[in-house]
Order: sequence, then structure tokens, then C-alpha cells
Amino acid sequence: MKNILVAQSGGPTAAINATLAGVITCAYSSGITGKVLGSCNGIQGVLEERFVDLRDKVQSAQDMDLLCQTPAAALGSCRLKLTEEQQYEQIVEVLRRNQINCFIYIGGNDSMDTVHKLSAYCSEHGIDDISVIGAPKTIDNDLMGTDHCPGFGSAAKYISTTFSELERDCHVYTMKAVTIVEVMGRNAGWLTAASALARLNGAKGPNLIYLCETDFDNSKFIADVKQELETCDSVVVAISEGIKDKDGRYVSEQVQSSAVDNFGHSYIAGSAKVLENLVRDEIGCKVRSIELNLMQRCAAHIASAVDIQESKMLGMRACQAALEGETGKMAAVIRKGDAPYTVTYETVPVSQVANAEKKVPADFITPDGHDVTEKMINYLKPLIQGENTVIYENGIPKHLALY
Amino acid sequence: MKNILVAQSGGPTAAINATLAGVITCAYSSGITGKVLGSCNGIQGVLEERFVDLRDKVQSAQDMDLLCQTPAAALGSCRLKLTEEQQYEQIVEVLRRNQINCFIYIGGNDSMDTVHKLSAYCSEHGIDDISVIGAPKTIDNDLMGTDHCPGFGSAAKYISTTFSELERDCHVYTMKAVTIVEVMGRNAGWLTAASALARLNGAKGPNLIYLCETDFDNSKFIADVKQELETCDSVVVAISEGIKDKDGRYVSEQVQSSAVDNFGHSYIAGSAKVLENLVRDEIGCKVRSIELNLMQRCAAHIASAVDIQESKMLGMRACQAALEGETGKMAAVIRKGDAPYTVTYETVPVSQVANAEKKVPADFITPDGHDVTEKMINYLKPLIQGENTVIYENGIPKHLALY
Repeated sequence: MKNILVAQSGGPTAAINATLAGVITCAYSSGITGKVLGSCNGIQGVLEERFVDLRDKVQSAQDMDLLCQTPAAALGSCRLKLTEEQQYEQIVEVLRRNQINCFIYIGGNDSMDTVHKLSAYCSEHGIDDISVIGAPKTIDNDLMGTDHCPGFGSAAKYISTTFSELERDCHVYTMKAVTIVEVMGRNAGWLTAASALARLNGAKGPNLIYLCETDFDNSKFIADVKQELETCDSVVVAISEGIKDKDGRYVSEQVQSSAVDNFGHSYIAGSAKVLENLVRDEIGCKVRSIELNLMQRCAAHIASAVDIQESKMLGMRACQAALEGETGKMAAVIRKGDAPYTVTYETVPVSQVANAEKKVPADFITPDGHDVTEKMINYLKPLIQGENTVIYENGIPKHLALY
Repeated sequence: MKNILVAQSGGPTAAINATLAGVITCAYSSGITGKVLGSCNGIQGVLEERFVDLRDKVQSAQDMDLLCQTPAAALGSCRLKLTEEQQYEQIVEVLRRNQINCFIYIGGNDSMDTVHKLSAYCSEHGIDDISVIGAPKTIDNDLMGTDHCPGFGSAAKYISTTFSELERDCHVYTMKAVTIVEVMGRNAGWLTAASALARLNGAKGPNLIYLCETDFDNSKFIADVKQELETCDSVVVAISEGIKDKDGRYVSEQVQSSAVDNFGHSYIAGSAKVLENLVRDEIGCKVRSIELNLMQRCAAHIASAVDIQESKMLGMRACQAALEGETGKMAAVIRKGDAPYTVTYETVPVSQVANAEKKVPADFITPDGHDVTEKMINYLKPLIQGENTVIYENGIPKHLALY
């Protein structure tokens, strides 16, 4: 019998609990699993030994469905960065004390760094009875080694749907107006690119799309907007929160403090607000800025069925790998074709993933720097397909709480 | 045979096209209707005689379904305020030239003012062959004469669902954090109150809810937040955009310009941002502000089935009244009971509606001023019930364009 501990980390997504459901499904069905524990608040909960028994918490088929439609880590998350060898030692002690053979960590770049270092620590210390496996998760879609990341497809579906709705909203008046919509993404523009999918049913979609991979130039931006205003009353612009000028200075830095989080990331927000003021000053028409803010990562009510299904499969793949004794790996989705869209689920060395970032390739962005190419559309389109049957109660979606 | 002209006005909602669909349905099925025209951009389109033939644009059952799930006025809107008698004269000329007997205007307070003045003009000038009827619409829910307003229920469903998702999102970390969510509503707090519905399935919901009907006090707010932080890591606060202090000064005014729109309304936004900075200064914990912005009024993908059904019925009732020769009236929904929820559709004199505002009654707000009472919940709950079957294509909702 093997005992499993699973934890979640990083920022919330609409699909991270589908991956947890996948781990649980594989564990329950494997026939060789004993304890299935969940750590509360990621690796921090491991250090503090705050566990819940998932065999108690997730029993019925309906529990599993509710878990899949619950946004944000049902086991909680953490922002703890492991910095000392003593912390790895302590983690191994906790795992041993609980007879854990498989530790599965669902998360993004930082979590994969933890998987990498913890598995390396085990190898270096001759600990061969503990498997450490990662399962990817991030709406940013910036993890290496996997075609795309669980949570991204659902965020992309929310974003494309929201842009299609905002376009209807912004087009009702005849006056000249500019709407600037800020989408999450510090260094990778994948989510912002998803705004282009609002065009799939024939609508115009955003007039202009600026990803953070392209140097942002205020004067060119104003010229682009002016040109669009010549033919359109309503100009909708999609921008990444992390757009920066050619010197690498964030557009938002003009108004933000220099605060940083535990990982040294700057707190940034407000690029759209900066550009709103710029348009008001330079063009003078009606202008509004919108941040899709946390809604884009937790809108589970409009999750992508493809994303939820794949997220679950990756949880199963990660659990399977751990049960088979693999370690230092991450479950990954590998695309075999766009049309028809086909994928396989594999494991890749987590060392390839940790501390790397997958940015948007140059040929996914148009040469003028304010739109995406057909290659991008072909890549993105399969990921937002399908709608889940969401269980509502009292008019709002039902969620499952694990602790 | 009677000829119908229908127009839409005011800010977008997710249900305003269901009301249009109701007008069309009644017109098509009446057996006494000739032309069914739509004016583009409300009363402005009437003055400019920019009409579309709805018998061409909306033919099949699927067209009708798509119209009902398309957010924001499919016929466009306007912000034109009629100020001169000569404009009414011109409107009557246009209606006569097009042999229009029934003019139906779907909109909010300002549109009902137009219905009132136009019907009064007709009466004063002995014009008895043109019926002018209003159909209500506003996410703000502040129209008199009707139990609630089409569009409100869908916005309330979006808001309650979003708060339930944000709560999951904000609770994943163990650190003390405050999230302040700004909801639309200048002078009426109905939409903000809908955040309380996030509690219907047992979740905590917003810790604190401040409506614009209650005098807002910065010191009390900070004390309230501090008290919540004593027992909760994550404190979620719902505020109306229009919260103001005891002297009537908007909280947002500290950072906003004094710009006004054509109706003399101040442009206000940013109350949550002001309070975010206040919490940072006074408490010093992690704090974030979120504006639900345009999404709350155009998120047709999560419309309330009750709202869409009632909105359609009100369009039918308005058309029926016009065909029967009523004038100067507004179709209204009258509640007969909460449990079971039952309503009737009637017409009320539009003079009772125009230029009045229905605010939240005092007994719908708790005495401490930072929550709503059971009376409010009983009023709101029926309005967000039921989910529409939304038609998706290519992974995003399909919309219908009329012009």
C-alpha cells in the first residue's frame, strides 16, 4: 500500500481543484493506495502538519463534481519560498512520520521549484521511498514542458466571453469612446492574447491587442488608437498588465509603489489606468479602463470543459507516476494536433520547468505589434471549447469546502 | 393594422434584449400588427429616422433565442435628453411619416421621462392615434412603480456568483488581507446588497456590506474592518460606488474630477481605490480593490432565468398595452408573494416613474449599517433563480447583431 499527500499552491485558478479531483480519482481507483491526505496551505501546511483526510472529505460522485467546479485551491495555498536545507529535512521528517510515499504538489513555477528541490534533496540523501511529483497549474500559461497549463483554458474562456460581452456593451452609443481592458500577465501575454478569441463568431473583438512581449511605446499606442477611431466609434483595447517600454520599465510603474512580494515580484497593476489618463490627455474622447482582476482566475461558472477535463487527467497522470515510483517529474499535456485537437499526458523532468518561463513566440504576434496571428488563434482555440454542466443551488454555483 | 416602433435606451443590461424579444413576440402573434420597426440608438435614431425592419432581422425561433442571450441594447442606445418642444414635434412627424401607431421605449429613469413627456405632448396636441408606452430596464433597480427592474436580477446573479467565487479566491492564503469590491449604484444600493446572496449556500459571503443609502464614515469603516480581521484572515467588503459621507460627499470625490455627463450626473468611480489606500495607511495589511465595472451589467452568459423570462413578459405586456391604445404607461411587474414567488404584469402611469428613484428602505439595512436584513434577502433571492441554456459557438456565447 502507498500513502499519498497532495497539496496545492500559487495563485487561484478555476481548474486547480479538477487536478486535485484527478489525484483523488487515481488514488481511489488504483487499488494500492492507503491514506489520501491533503495538506492545507501547500508546503506551509506540510511543515506545520496541517492535514485533512480526503477519504472523509470527498466521498461521493457529487463531491467530486462539486470539487471540480469549485474555484481556487480547495486545500488552500501559500506563498512560502523554501530557502533553507533544514526546511527540506523537516518536510521529509513529516512525510516519514505520516508514512507518506507519494507527495504531489499542484502549482506553478514556484511550486515546481519546490518539487525540483525537494526531489533533489531526497536523491542526494538516498531517500528512495518518497516520490515527489508536480502537477502544473497557472492561468498565466507560462510553464515550460507542457503544451499549456491547467487553469489557462478556463481563464481564456472567461476572457474571450467577457470581451465579446464588453464589445456589445461598448458599441451601443454613437459617441467616440475608448475602453482599455487590462488582463493578467506580468511577463507572458497568453491571457491577453485570448481576447482575440472574442472574434471567433464574427464580431470585431478588441481593435488592438498589446502583449507584454512587445516593447510598448506610448506614442505608437496613441497613434494606433487615433487610427482606429477614424473608422470606429468604440475602440476596445486589450493590454497585458505587464506591458513595458523598450527599457523594460513597466507602464504601470508611473503610479505604483515599489513594494515586492515574498518572491521579489513587484506588485503591479494599473497599466490600463495609466493609459486611460494618457488617452484623455492626448485624444480627449470618452475613455474608460477596466481590470479583469481576480475574476479572470476564479470564474469557475464559465470554466472550459476541455480545461477541466485535461486538468483532471493531469492530476491522474501525476498520481499514477508517483504510485509507480517516479520522482522529480511534472505531469504534462503534449499536443499532437490542432484539428482535430488531440493530446497525450506524459511526465517531464521538473528541472526543465522550474524557474523557466514560456513567453509568447514572436510569430504569434503580428509585425505591427498590436495583434496576434493565426498561429496564436489555432493554438488557443481548442483550449476554450466546451461548457461544464455547473450545479447551482439557490441561484448560485455550489462549491465544496475541504477545511 | 397597427405599426410598431420600438427603441432602447440607457445603460446596457443582460436582459434588455429579452424585453425587445417580448415586444417582437407580441407584435408577431397579435394578428393586428403591420410594420415592426426598430430605431437605432433610441430616441436619437427616431429623430434621425434610422430604422431597421425587425421582421427581416428576427425571423426564426433561434434568432429570438439569440436575441435574448445578447447583452446590451441590440438596437443601440443613446444619452440624448430631450429639452425642446420642437424635438417632440419632430418625433411625432417622424412617427406619422412612418404610419407608426405604437412607440415602445425600453429604458430607465431618463427614458421613462421621455415616454412621459412625449405622451403628454401627444395628449396636449390632441394626437390620439399614437400610443407611447415604456418598458422598464435598469440594473440599478431604482425605478418606481415596478417591484423590480429587468436586468437587475441578472446583474444580481453575476454579483452574487462573483462574490462567492472571490470569497474562495481570497481565502486560500493564511495572511491577513482585505479585499474591497466596488459595485455599481450611484444612489441606490440594490446591486451591492445582492453580494449578500453569496451566502445562500452556507459560505460567509462579504464580511461587510456598505450601501449608498447609509452615511459612510471612514473611521467606523476602519474599526469594522479591524474587528473582522480579529477573527478572519480574509475580509471581503462590498461597497456601492456611490457611498458618501454624512454631508453627501462621495467617498470617490477625493480623487475624481468634477466632470458630469449630459444628464448632470457626476462621473464617479474609484471608491474602492480610495478605501484601499485608507486600509493600507490605517491598518497596513495586504489590501486590494476590485471594480466589477461593466462586467456586472453585460455578463449575459450568467443571466438569471427568472430575469430573462420576466423581461420578455414585460416587453409583451408593453406591446399589448400599446396595441390596445394605452398611452403614457409603463409595463411593471407586481410581486404577489415571495414563497412561492408569484408576480403579475400590469401597466402603471409613467408619470409615477419618471424622475423618481426607488432607494433601499431603512429596514432592509441592519442597524449597524454594514449589512442587509432578512427582508432584503427575501426580496432579492427569487430574482436570481434559474439558469438559461446559453447557445455557445466556438467556445463563446453566440450573439445577434441587428444593425
